[in-house]
Amino acid sequence: MLLDDNTIVAIATANGIGSISIVRISGANALEIASRITKKNNFKPRLASLSPVYNHNDELIDESLVLYFKAPFSFTGEDIVEFQCHGGVAIANMIVNEVLHNGARMANPGEFSKRAFLNNKIDLSKAEAISKMIEARSEDAVKLLAKQLKGELSDFVNDIREDLLFMLAYTEVSIDYAEEDLPSDILEQIKSKIDKIQIKLNETLDASKRREGMIEGFKIAIVGKPNVGKSSLLNKLLNFDRAIISDIAGTTRDTIEESVKIGTHIIKIVDTAGIRNASDVIEQIGIEKSIEAINEADIVIALFDNSKACDEEDKKIISLLEENSHKQIIKVLNKTDLDNAFDKNKIMDFIELSTKNSIKDLVSKIETILDNNTHSDEMTLISKRQVQAVEDTLSHINTSLFPLETGEFEFFAHHIKEALESISNITRPYENEQMLDVMFGEFCLGK
Amino acid sequence: MLLDDNTIVAIATANGIGSISIVRISGANALEIASRITKKNNFKPRLASLSPVYNHNDELIDESLVLYFKAPFSFTGEDIVEFQCHGGVAIANMIVNEVLHNGARMANPGEFSKRAFLNNKIDLSKAEAISKMIEARSEDAVKLLAKQLKGELSDFVNDIREDLLFMLAYTEVSIDYAEEDLPSDILEQIKSKIDKIQIKLNETLDASKRREGMIEGFKIAIVGKPNVGKSSLLNKLLNFDRAIISDIAGTTRDTIEESVKIGTHIIKIVDTAGIRNASDVIEQIGIEKSIEAINEADIVIALFDNSKACDEEDKKIISLLEENSHKQIIKVLNKTDLDNAFDKNKIMDFIELSTKNSIKDLVSKIETILDNNTHSDEMTLISKRQVQAVEDTLSHINTSLFPLETGEFEFFAHHIKEALESISNITRPYENEQMLDVMFGEFCLGK
Repeated sequence: MLLDDNTIVAIATANGIGSISIVRISGANALEIASRITKKNNFKPRLASLSPVYNHNDELIDESLVLYFKAPFSFTGEDIVEFQCHGGVAIANMIVNEVLHNGARMANPGEFSKRAFLNNKIDLSKAEAISKMIEARSEDAVKLLAKQLKGELSDFVNDIREDLLFMLAYTEVSIDYAEEDLPSDILEQIKSKIDKIQIKLNETLDASKRREGMIEGFKIAIVGKPNVGKSSLLNKLLNFDRAIISDIAGTTRDTIEESVKIGTHIIKIVDTAGIRNASDVIEQIGIEKSIEAINEADIVIALFDNSKACDEEDKKIISLLEENSHKQIIKVLNKTDLDNAFDKNKIMDFIELSTKNSIKDLVSKIETILDNNTHSDEMTLISKRQVQAVEDTLSHINTSLFPLETGEFEFFAHHIKEALESISNITRPYENEQMLDVMFGEFCLGK
Repeated sequence: MLLDDNTIVAIATANGIGSISIVRISGANALEIASRITKKNNFKPRLASLSPVYNHNDELIDESLVLYFKAPFSFTGEDIVEFQCHGGVAIANMIVNEVLHNGARMANPGEFSKRAFLNNKIDLSKAEAISKMIEARSEDAVKLLAKQLKGELSDFVNDIREDLLFMLAYTEVSIDYAEEDLPSDILEQIKSKIDKIQIKLNETLDASKRREGMIEGFKIAIVGKPNVGKSSLLNKLLNFDRAIISDIAGTTRDTIEESVKIGTHIIKIVDTAGIRNASDVIEQIGIEKSIEAINEADIVIALFDNSKACDEEDKKIISLLEENSHKQIIKVLNKTDLDNAFDKNKIMDFIELSTKNSIKDLVSKIETILDNNTHSDEMTLISKRQVQAVEDTLSHINTSLFPLETGEFEFFAHHIKEALESISNITRPYENEQMLDVMFGEFCLGK
């Protein structure tokens, strides 16, 4: 993929009414264009200066704060000039037009990040973190992405790469020498390294699956027999601290309607039967739908009716919970304001709920579970692309074990090279122009 | 009005999805707070540096570009620290929360500008220009506001103030000395100065009225007898280059539906009879409504039907146009694809239009008129507040003429002092806390 040498421009701040907008120019002509529209030519790298901005009819259009970043010490690795202009849409657009008038072209979505990647300023994992950061809705997401932006995943990938390269080097030795001349423990050393890599990658996949909700929101399923109070609980959850999510502009209406913020977490109610459109529907969800909902969920809330005896349907739910004991499960005994008829021993550890009391206990239980899920330092992948790369790496490593056992070192080396290629896809793929185009094309403009 | 010494914080960029957001802190503790959340303390004034940002649990939440402006060399005149963080809503909010956690408080709308005013960094006319800049929708508006931001109106006001002060000084002389000891031409000098001020202020009021549409949009009225084609022309105008306005987020839906961009101008169709809701209504607008529409309009488009003889209703419209010859009037002969029956001599200079041809000629005529309206260098007031101040000044000056003639110099001086006070309201009112609170309260947050 060739890096074109056009100078590009875009508005880097959100579209709308704000005090400040930023127009960002990147490329070889950035400084010259900035000098032309400001009639100043003494910009010093990184030093902010207030400057008039003129259009090509010599009319003053703003006084902007101008920041110059000299290549290669900039986000893209090219010369960058940023105009912090007065907010609103009109001025920023006028400045962009003047920059275009002076020979730059509009940046494509993600083009700034793509250039940063091509100029070795960031790797793909960092680019992905930047892209997702912009749409992050919870503190969970921000913290996770900040780590990846800082290079945690890059370091992780580099460690794996070093181990794999070490194995390749050992393999070369093994191929060149007769078996009896090799150090006796070399095979053991390789196997032990492979073991460690497998454990590391599997742990990462597990943690990433468990922590998937940190970015998009954790999924919660509400199960229980008809009329146990699912709809009412759903509504209480959806209305809990609702404003925080609704405040966020730019999220789609669909998402708003399903998401709630609890502590630093976003939770989403798994809607397997169009809950939103007909609030009674959730009451009618049968056992099959419950199974579906549980499969999708990170947390399962199982509701039981305190006022009725534990019946066959309840027992089915209980056995379903037992089958899914690897999930996070919260049992709730509902309608505790009515006389008790339910055998509490059947469910043991539970939270009591009635129409009269609040769901505060339940919410704090959910928060505790999610705090535990998210507060660890486990390496976490943040995209399907990254997960795919780790799965491919693992698969190649698994395949390499057989030729290693049988002493076919050339085959072993071939699989390890494939593993190397797969893990490198996370940060800096050997050669994959198409993938890059797709990835950066999903970025927002000005990034 | 006392300046409170709290350190304040706000997000200065528009709310929504963008690559970059800016969090702005102003006040005595800005630098200390910035040091605490970045764990860095070597910020140099105006020099941008990339810095990690931590929350109070010591978790990394972003890597931001940090800019420090040392008092008094900042927008507010206080220490300012700006965080250019990764875009989106979550991170900026988290940084704001950390700043609040460290003792700052949320800024009120307009509070940054208010502090800038109280610290003598800007006067009220500049503050108003900043506020209106943010909502500007056209290049007209931006250019006008950029001039005011640069201080054109401030200079204008200062010139008037100097002249008024000169008169006051002369008056003191006149009071202290006997009439026969005064320079013989002193009265003439004062009168001549008053003349000039009156002309200057009247010209400014006239220009401001004529150029009012530069910020909010110029108003166009379409008049003509029923079935002459008003609705159809309205629709053609509303759909002309429509996308440009619709693109702008943050404007209200009502405004979008009525406004069109022509060249660098915004035009608004005067909707005296609910045109939008029932497109036939405009056809039914009678002469009374036409008078109303013409009164409100900057430009009047009068439609005549080429296929019908000039009747009484047309003649009423024509005489209405003659009565309003001070307005910008465009006569349009419609339905020119049909056989001519209309006496063209009745209207003289007109544009031909048919259902088949485009409104390009008409639009370019409108553009020429508005170019002429807007491309002059006349001093232009941008708010009702400024217009009121100039009107008050004029009124006090007019009142001063009588005591000047009769030699009652104390009375004359009194009125000139009132004029001084009125004109100062534009930039730096003597004492008017309530007015300031109202004015800055209308600003957007972060400004």
